Amino acid sequence: MQIAIVLFDRFTALDAVGPYEILSRIPGAETVFVAERTGPVRNDSDSLALVAERTLADVPAPDLVIVPGGPGQSAQMANETLLGWLRAADATSTWTTSVCTGSLLLAAAGLLQGRRATSHWLALDVLKTYGAEPTGQRVVIDGKYVTAAGVSSGIDMGLTLLGRIAGDEHAQAVQLLTEYDPQPPYDAGSPEKAPAALVEEFRAKSRFILR
Amino acid sequence: MQIAIVLFDRFTALDAVGPYEILSRIPGAETVFVAERTGPVRNDSDSLALVAERTLADVPAPDLVIVPGGPGQSAQMANETLLGWLRAADATSTWTTSVCTGSLLLAAAGLLQGRRATSHWLALDVLKTYGAEPTGQRVVIDGKYVTAAGVSSGIDMGLTLLGRIAGDEHAQAVQLLTEYDPQPPYDAGSPEKAPAALVEEFRAKSRFILR
Repeated sequence: MQIAIVLFDRFTALDAVGPYEILSRIPGAETVFVAERTGPVRNDSDSLALVAERTLADVPAPDLVIVPGGPGQSAQMANETLLGWLRAADATSTWTTSVCTGSLLLAAAGLLQGRRATSHWLALDVLKTYGAEPTGQRVVIDGKYVTAAGVSSGIDMGLTLLGRIAGDEHAQAVQLLTEYDPQPPYDAGSPEKAPAALVEEFRAKSRFILR
Repeated sequence: MQIAIVLFDRFTALDAVGPYEILSRIPGAETVFVAERTGPVRNDSDSLALVAERTLADVPAPDLVIVPGGPGQSAQMANETLLGWLRAADATSTWTTSVCTGSLLLAAAGLLQGRRATSHWLALDVLKTYGAEPTGQRVVIDGKYVTAAGVSSGIDMGLTLLGRIAGDEHAQAVQLLTEYDPQPPYDAGSPEKAPAALVEEFRAKSRFILR
């Protein structure tokens, strides 16, 4: 099974590395980071660079596509090189997935029309404008489309999908090996749980950054 | 505040990127990936490369040191360039931290002598041989030393430390922004919770890989 993780300038690192750490452990999987050009791709805060080893053109038909999000997603929403690749890869993929605002790219490519999907909580309204049906779930599976909520949710998405692909026992083994027994010191990880003032502050800011 | 994240061949990507995604959001922080040499550093499965932007020598006195683990840790246990850098950086650091088997490197550098600490669950016995006092907690704080359990625990370590450094409200804001509201599809993330057969299988294998 070939797994392609798509990188673009100003992606969010954990969006990509969370599911990478889980899904690259599919037995026999070949995982490759792809981008328009090979070489280092810098993240949203410009202090991290992950290397794209192959171009999009080099990897035309992956079995599993993973699209991370991040503030850089906005600049890709009309990038036909990327959107065209997503459409073509999706035509033969077994699974097409995203984390965070990566789902907006799948939606912009026309792949989530009429489908249940999710995104970063601040992007759910935008997702709707592209014809998807946002849900409040952390991981949403609709057919072969698997979308995850914000940033860290890609780990849960990865484990869920790993169970489907490689079986529950293998997924549990990977959970144990990665010691994924989360114990956050706060309970503020969703807009329903976080202090209301924080939620409002982010909503106000997001009107200027998300589109 | 300067944050240095140490890379070495065959590190585990999520060990580094989990706490990176959280702690790089300390207001005013400069985060830099460091290694013996600058350039791409390949991970444990050889399918991911993160770029070290500066050498260890370039960054002699970070305020916060983060040491990830991974199978490549073994080959570094007698690397005096790295261990010497850890000792020198620790002499002036405000916080010295690790994820997974990164704590074995701190211990090999002599920094965890007599201190409560943790590591990947398979490495707790080894940690003890270096004079540390392993605990079963996911995140252990002993003075300025903050160690985390396996792989994914670096996210919990990051949030815990972020609260100490930048305050609870900022930590909650970062938890909300990264939507860290974990919902693993299985409950197998620790040796106490996972199926006993899996735990035994890993323990048997680890005798050959950990030292």
